[in-house]
Amino acid sequence: MKLYADSSSGNCYKVQLLLSFLGLPYDLVEVNVLSGDTRKPGFLAKNPNGRIPLLELDDGSLLPESNAILFYLAEGTPFLPEDRLGRARALQWMFFEQYSHEPYIAVLRFWRKYQGRTRESEPGWAEREEKGYAALDVMERALMERPWFVAESPSIADIALYAYTHVAAHGDFDLSCYGAINGWLDRLAALPGYIAIAPPPGRA
Amino acid sequence: MKLYADSSSGNCYKVQLLLSFLGLPYDLVEVNVLSGDTRKPGFLAKNPNGRIPLLELDDGSLLPESNAILFYLAEGTPFLPEDRLGRARALQWMFFEQYSHEPYIAVLRFWRKYQGRTRESEPGWAEREEKGYAALDVMERALMERPWFVAESPSIADIALYAYTHVAAHGDFDLSCYGAINGWLDRLAALPGYIAIAPPPGRA
Repeated sequence: MKLYADSSSGNCYKVQLLLSFLGLPYDLVEVNVLSGDTRKPGFLAKNPNGRIPLLELDDGSLLPESNAILFYLAEGTPFLPEDRLGRARALQWMFFEQYSHEPYIAVLRFWRKYQGRTRESEPGWAEREEKGYAALDVMERALMERPWFVAESPSIADIALYAYTHVAAHGDFDLSCYGAINGWLDRLAALPGYIAIAPPPGRA
Repeated sequence: MKLYADSSSGNCYKVQLLLSFLGLPYDLVEVNVLSGDTRKPGFLAKNPNGRIPLLELDDGSLLPESNAILFYLAEGTPFLPEDRLGRARALQWMFFEQYSHEPYIAVLRFWRKYQGRTRESEPGWAEREEKGYAALDVMERALMERPWFVAESPSIADIALYAYTHVAAHGDFDLSCYGAINGWLDRLAALPGYIAIAPPPGRA
């Protein structure tokens, strides 16, 4: 199994974190988005949408989209609920992550840490920040009722949401008032097999 | 089963289309986003993320996120592939839809038909249009190789992508050069049980 990824990207880290929890071996192919690797013909032949992570199975099958990869890897493991509604709930939070969370919390981190853009330089900063906090509010409310997003144990929904939430400060989000989220972040980081995300380039 | 929806929204129509293909009965509760229904306390108690569609099961369980609802309803039917990689591929295209397609193709339709905004009035129009065409290019390339996105028969990936693609012209997208997409749109609309999307308010 081969994973095309940038280890400082939350979308890639999600997959690496699950692989580590599951103890599955794989070859990592580092792909540098900033230097245009994902827009080169060789990579576009593998994923025409030009994004990482991309999983290459041993038979050569190629699977893009971080949360689809998580679902694929988690089938038959404790990280995917066994019941029909539980699986749908895991997906509910993963679609929430890609639509209502990542475009705000991950994007401000990218602007800040990879591109050196700031609140002052970006007219669109405040709107993304507001939507990012709205996503955090929804998460806080859910985690006040239960320890993990779907079941009594961690699932791929937790891994998907953990990836960019735990580094939200990189995009200047202040998590200090989110008690339930902070407790959940601590619980996830204490799981056996946990690995840290690679640091971003650190610009600005 | 109860569906909270606006029948002119592509995200809601997806679910109604699958329910129609499957011949499943349900009660429709019309929710008007423009008049703020999804931000009222009664609705927020059902979905704290304040979005439609929202599925309410007979036992009172609530499931938001259009593509999670599709997955839930399709389990055990021909619209969800039986093999592990096939399921992941369906999700791959559904995450593509929510991240790389809907924010551009659905949003320009919303701006144009619901809010009366135009290319001239919106500085962000050109960038969204470019990304929308990039998504259509990825779809065209996939559909040049096979009749449906995942398998030899239609799946929830096709339904998810059909919803906003077939009304892309509402956001001023021109599909005339996308031969494979047009063939696929025709095949989907010819399936037994097909229903049309409700027209948007039609402003501007």
